[in-house]
Amino acid sequence: EIVAAAEAYFAQAAGPLAGKKAIVTSGPTHEPIDPVRYIANRSSGKQGHAIARALAALGAEVTLVSGPTREPDPAGVKTVPIESARDMLAACEAALPADIVVCAAAVADWRVASAADQKMKKEAGALPPLQLTENPDILKTLSQKTDGRPALVIGFAAETEKVVEHATAKRARKGCDWILANDVSPATGTFGGDSNTIHLVTESGTEDWPAMTKTEVGKRLAARIAEHFQTGHSV
Amino acid sequence: EIVAAAEAYFAQAAGPLAGKKAIVTSGPTHEPIDPVRYIANRSSGKQGHAIARALAALGAEVTLVSGPTREPDPAGVKTVPIESARDMLAACEAALPADIVVCAAAVADWRVASAADQKMKKEAGALPPLQLTENPDILKTLSQKTDGRPALVIGFAAETEKVVEHATAKRARKGCDWILANDVSPATGTFGGDSNTIHLVTESGTEDWPAMTKTEVGKRLAARIAEHFQTGHSV
Repeated sequence: EIVAAAEAYFAQAAGPLAGKKAIVTSGPTHEPIDPVRYIANRSSGKQGHAIARALAALGAEVTLVSGPTREPDPAGVKTVPIESARDMLAACEAALPADIVVCAAAVADWRVASAADQKMKKEAGALPPLQLTENPDILKTLSQKTDGRPALVIGFAAETEKVVEHATAKRARKGCDWILANDVSPATGTFGGDSNTIHLVTESGTEDWPAMTKTEVGKRLAARIAEHFQTGHSV
Repeated sequence: EIVAAAEAYFAQAAGPLAGKKAIVTSGPTHEPIDPVRYIANRSSGKQGHAIARALAALGAEVTLVSGPTREPDPAGVKTVPIESARDMLAACEAALPADIVVCAAAVADWRVASAADQKMKKEAGALPPLQLTENPDILKTLSQKTDGRPALVIGFAAETEKVVEHATAKRARKGCDWILANDVSPATGTFGGDSNTIHLVTESGTEDWPAMTKTEVGKRLAARIAEHFQTGHSV
């Protein structure tokens, strides 16, 4: 860990992303129903944490805003633990300004409109009144900032069908720069697993990456980001 | 681990619960909404796993039916991993007959009536149609078996207010023999924490245990169960 911290220290002075600030979101969000129940997304946090580590290794100053995961806090990265989507957005906004944002978290689209203060009793009524309401859209909010928009905003699209088609539409809808699309159908083992097959959707089109580990995806993405800044945003 | 397995082996030959079969449930259940979303209960599985270990240490033959947790599978115990409440009930039924059942899992009371096969799209409509339906009641089902009911059925009551009152009513309603009631208000730190303050509700009344670790709760409960069988079910 001392070695990792030292490496991160020297990378921040000398790496190709030295002087750049990055925000990475990771993990799921947990949206409370009551003190004992919640709605969650399946997300191990492995991919987001790997991206945070890889960006730090290239010299970026990284803030990792993460929902509950089993992943250790990466060395040389400032980790901000959160639970809900609203907390995640607030933590991202607090970390601005930034040059790079990578939204890798699996944010719950909806939350319960008014979470109960006490545990809902099963016998009190037939079914709980689960009034849902839309969560803030973190990727869209950061992509469409008119004041102080990060130079490079990157989202993920976890799809179970028509992966690239959905991702291309998502890129346009959110106003972000790049989308990393992947197939998370149960048969692929992406959720909780160690490997990932990415399609990078940019303004110029789609680039299909081979299957690789989530650590390798992190490194490849960080290298692409460094290349992007070195070539004057031409990618 | 070899030592633990060996200890478990000798305990099963010689301990006060030798020859008894026990089923313990532990952890949360995850009820799918679609391939990426689910409803969950907060439960670390620490208490259920500690009870399974303690019963095995006194010689019982233990089947541990557990939802997703970070706890390692206890040595000398048969662990059956499950996700949903329906899977948990099926695994318990498959493990019958048993002398002892301890339902320590935080089972979701409700599930989504028809989970979606594909990821629900946020833009497809305003809000997802979260039709909920009641899950099977595992504690009640096992307590009220007319054929082959386990001799001692024990449940938990995780409450955030009126702890003993709610637990006493729950014991009567479910038809179980004992209830271990605890206060899981966020301020108590019981969820995910290492300690627990138990009120044991039996036919004879309520016994307040001091605050102790979940490991100690497991040992104390296992000792009480052994005492129960040794004194001819008089407790």
